[in-house]
Amino acid sequence: MSGSPRPRLVMKFGGTSVATVERIKNVAQHVKREVAAGYDVAVVVSAMSGKTNELVGWCNEASPLYDQREYDTIVASGEQVTSGLLALTLTSIGIKARSWQGWQVPIETSAAHGSARISAIPSKNLDDGFAAGEVAVISGFQGIEPLSGRITTLGRGGSDTSAVAIAGAIGAERCDIYTDVDGVYTTDPRIVPKAQRMDRIAFEEMLEMASLGAKVLQVRSVELAMVHKVKTYVRSSFDDPENPNPGTLICDEEDIMEQQVVTGIAYSKDEAQITLRDVADRPGVAAAIFVPLADANINVDMIVQNISADGASTDITFTVPQAEFQRAKDVIDKARKDVVCDNVETNMDVSKISVIGIGMRSHAGVAATCFQALAGRGINIRAITTSEIKISVLIDAAYTELAVRTLHTLYGLDKA
Amino acid sequence: MSGSPRPRLVMKFGGTSVATVERIKNVAQHVKREVAAGYDVAVVVSAMSGKTNELVGWCNEASPLYDQREYDTIVASGEQVTSGLLALTLTSIGIKARSWQGWQVPIETSAAHGSARISAIPSKNLDDGFAAGEVAVISGFQGIEPLSGRITTLGRGGSDTSAVAIAGAIGAERCDIYTDVDGVYTTDPRIVPKAQRMDRIAFEEMLEMASLGAKVLQVRSVELAMVHKVKTYVRSSFDDPENPNPGTLICDEEDIMEQQVVTGIAYSKDEAQITLRDVADRPGVAAAIFVPLADANINVDMIVQNISADGASTDITFTVPQAEFQRAKDVIDKARKDVVCDNVETNMDVSKISVIGIGMRSHAGVAATCFQALAGRGINIRAITTSEIKISVLIDAAYTELAVRTLHTLYGLDKA
Repeated sequence: MSGSPRPRLVMKFGGTSVATVERIKNVAQHVKREVAAGYDVAVVVSAMSGKTNELVGWCNEASPLYDQREYDTIVASGEQVTSGLLALTLTSIGIKARSWQGWQVPIETSAAHGSARISAIPSKNLDDGFAAGEVAVISGFQGIEPLSGRITTLGRGGSDTSAVAIAGAIGAERCDIYTDVDGVYTTDPRIVPKAQRMDRIAFEEMLEMASLGAKVLQVRSVELAMVHKVKTYVRSSFDDPENPNPGTLICDEEDIMEQQVVTGIAYSKDEAQITLRDVADRPGVAAAIFVPLADANINVDMIVQNISADGASTDITFTVPQAEFQRAKDVIDKARKDVVCDNVETNMDVSKISVIGIGMRSHAGVAATCFQALAGRGINIRAITTSEIKISVLIDAAYTELAVRTLHTLYGLDKA
Repeated sequence: MSGSPRPRLVMKFGGTSVATVERIKNVAQHVKREVAAGYDVAVVVSAMSGKTNELVGWCNEASPLYDQREYDTIVASGEQVTSGLLALTLTSIGIKARSWQGWQVPIETSAAHGSARISAIPSKNLDDGFAAGEVAVISGFQGIEPLSGRITTLGRGGSDTSAVAIAGAIGAERCDIYTDVDGVYTTDPRIVPKAQRMDRIAFEEMLEMASLGAKVLQVRSVELAMVHKVKTYVRSSFDDPENPNPGTLICDEEDIMEQQVVTGIAYSKDEAQITLRDVADRPGVAAAIFVPLADANINVDMIVQNISADGASTDITFTVPQAEFQRAKDVIDKARKDVVCDNVETNMDVSKISVIGIGMRSHAGVAATCFQALAGRGINIRAITTSEIKISVLIDAAYTELAVRTLHTLYGLDKA
């Protein structure tokens, strides 16, 4: 019938992009454009915004300690509705389409209900659909555990992960993540009006941005894209479907011609600081603190421990999300029987500012100029951690916006 | 581990019985009672009331001529939520339970999306669940077409059919249909306060009651129960779970000791009458009228044609649901090129009253006393049809309540 196979494309639409039938019709126009451009398209959809919360609310009302397997069955129904509605909307405008639930594709996952990991996506069914000229409309966020045959979910925001994994499985040319912003910015435009949309960002940088509160993409999906080399775009479903912006490409470092030293400034106000003063400095002390926190499933972020000055005691500081602060404090209070320390200080009124850029690896002095600039504004740095491509500082929350603006200008990120 | 297998029971709960999480908790108490009584229980649930309408509304908004296969996928999500919520509620009160979607059981159906028929229910999965001491919470109304692997639905009210079919498949001792009324009444208690709840009613009588507007049970489910000899109870989920009423048993005629001559009076106001006057009486004329109506998928109910007086022409009267009247009228107007008739009369202002009872088969004079009693009240009978166990008359709608009350008293059905 035809010559070479058509290139493949994954398009993912989140909850706000499919919030109403009207919006779903708009999504269908975006899909239509790509089909007309010659792609075999797989669309991945989230639940209509608000629906997942409604379903989770019912689970909690029925039983606060709900059976996670039933939770998955209940919550997965949200995406089922959206995939069906988009498929019938596409059909109604003359585009062959059919919906696929996780168990139908199948998207095979582990049995870790509520936060399952994708283990395999056999592409036969989707291949057959493409051969028949059908758009595949796939429910994101969900899969099936093959042994039990039960519905699983990937955890909140898992639809991004579904999209990237499917793109890898079907060998898609790229994966477009449609959201309510038109790309990744050098920082939050609500704080810095001069923030710029980036054309490209490296996977590693995006990982840091995502994990630092720039909630455009789920961290897991970026990891997956990086491992499977899936070219991923972040773009807006609110653009004119006839003439959309290209968005931001998340790609390999090598694909970025002119790497900036610093590509973005991220911040997080959702931090609570816990400092243990004069901890007896002996082997195993860090484990005695952080193993109980891990056992309690508390997400520890920054960890700062300095070289002990006197060889006898040191200070250990770490941060946790504010919602987990009280639980973390309880764990630490209990751990004090194993951890000799002078006292425990806490501070809820802090925020974390991060400077991110792959170029840092080959440029000296980035950290120094950062600290200098903040000092110049009278901003006190409470703690510092660094990685190869990131510098994070903990400061008083009141200075958040000032610090972000200062650093954005400092590294030449302001729009002309 | 144990001796003889436990008896099995199917319990079905409709939309109003699971309308909120609060109501679902109440349903769980009913299930708990039966588990304690020693049954292996399969529960069949509908969607929370209102949810199916919301989902159907979205389908219509997306595309008035929607793809029926996607419609099924979308609408089936409603039951998925309820089965999950009930399963986790049961688990939370210490009763082992798991949810089953149609595709998981599997409930295998035909490919007639939107009104699929159940073809097979392999009981292996449910058997294994019972052996493990689990209550099976099954989404009603839905199934899977095995070849395509797609979700099907059985048509509205199909959950009753699911319940009876599952009862047949697992060899249940009985099937309890929980609804918002506590049984089947001799007539509508809103019209006749003296209407009585029946302890038992024969399948054949229930079929006539159901098809005549007593909307307690879906006709298909009664047919299925009759064929597979499933003892089916209609009872109320609003009863005290600790001490519920037994409801009405729908059973074989032989299981009813003292058969009444007349067991119930049904009525339907949803009638539109069409009469063709002086139709040329020759072979094929009835087909020329009713085949086009069937082709247009119009549900013709009463059909009355009398012996032609002059051998040349006759009158033909039939009724259709009021919602289908205009379409029926259009079909007839087109058919008049093949059907020579004098004129077509129509009347929307009619209702149908039916007297039902298996005992009629062996008792003469039931019809005569009916006509006499109506005449005594000055009620004009426009048309009559009868079956072995039913007499239906078409009257002016204004007399509906008077006719029902008159006949209810006439046949000794009033509560003492």
